[in-house]
Amino acid sequence: MIYNIDHVAIAVHDLDAAIERHRQLYGAEPMWREVVEEQGVEEAMIPVGGSFVQLLSPLGEDTPVGRFLTKRGEGLHHVAYAVSDIEATLDELRAQGARLVDETARPGGRGARIAFVHPAAFAGTLVELVELPDE
Amino acid sequence: MIYNIDHVAIAVHDLDAAIERHRQLYGAEPMWREVVEEQGVEEAMIPVGGSFVQLLSPLGEDTPVGRFLTKRGEGLHHVAYAVSDIEATLDELRAQGARLVDETARPGGRGARIAFVHPAAFAGTLVELVELPDE
Repeated sequence: MIYNIDHVAIAVHDLDAAIERHRQLYGAEPMWREVVEEQGVEEAMIPVGGSFVQLLSPLGEDTPVGRFLTKRGEGLHHVAYAVSDIEATLDELRAQGARLVDETARPGGRGARIAFVHPAAFAGTLVELVELPDE
Repeated sequence: MIYNIDHVAIAVHDLDAAIERHRQLYGAEPMWREVVEEQGVEEAMIPVGGSFVQLLSPLGEDTPVGRFLTKRGEGLHHVAYAVSDIEATLDELRAQGARLVDETARPGGRGARIAFVHPAAFAGTLVELVELPDE
């Protein structure tokens, strides 16, 4: 059902500064960055093994990541699992009574289809499901 | 310097309940679980792709994970990077002025050598370095 940790997301105030600091500390470079207007974020994807560290900065204070930063400060924001069939996964989660943020998949970065699962579903942890486009 | 996301750790109150809930939702089973007295935790390692989701429950309230749960509730606790040479990585982090929790490596689960990097070093994110034993 889930076959990989696609990424671990870290919310940051200043994306440029965070990229530079991450490079200094861990010698790791973003493979790309993009603005995802629909989610109100700019994100940088840093490849680590077969997964990514995603640095996320908000496009404004009144966005989900902006509100997270106001409330909690910088830190781990969510974990994203790669799934082969996101609709089937959402169906299974619904059948288990899991609270969903997104009832259907929507467009994410990288041409992926994504959906968020509410932290109430599992141990206070915001989970993103990612169905990557066929290569 | 870092070559993989070794695991993403989620702090939980009740390890058995969290394992069962994770199984229901994501069809994923722990590969093993163990008590790591030195860290005051019991941990279950659920393989996901080439990484793990680590469920962490405290052995008591007055432990790092116990205090985290009191303060923040259940949720994402840290991210662990696999490194090939943990002493060299600690030296490089020190050279960059990163605040360390552990100045030298210590024993972790799985026969690994581990060290924690303070959240102040990077974006409020507690980072664990893991040097796995030779296979």
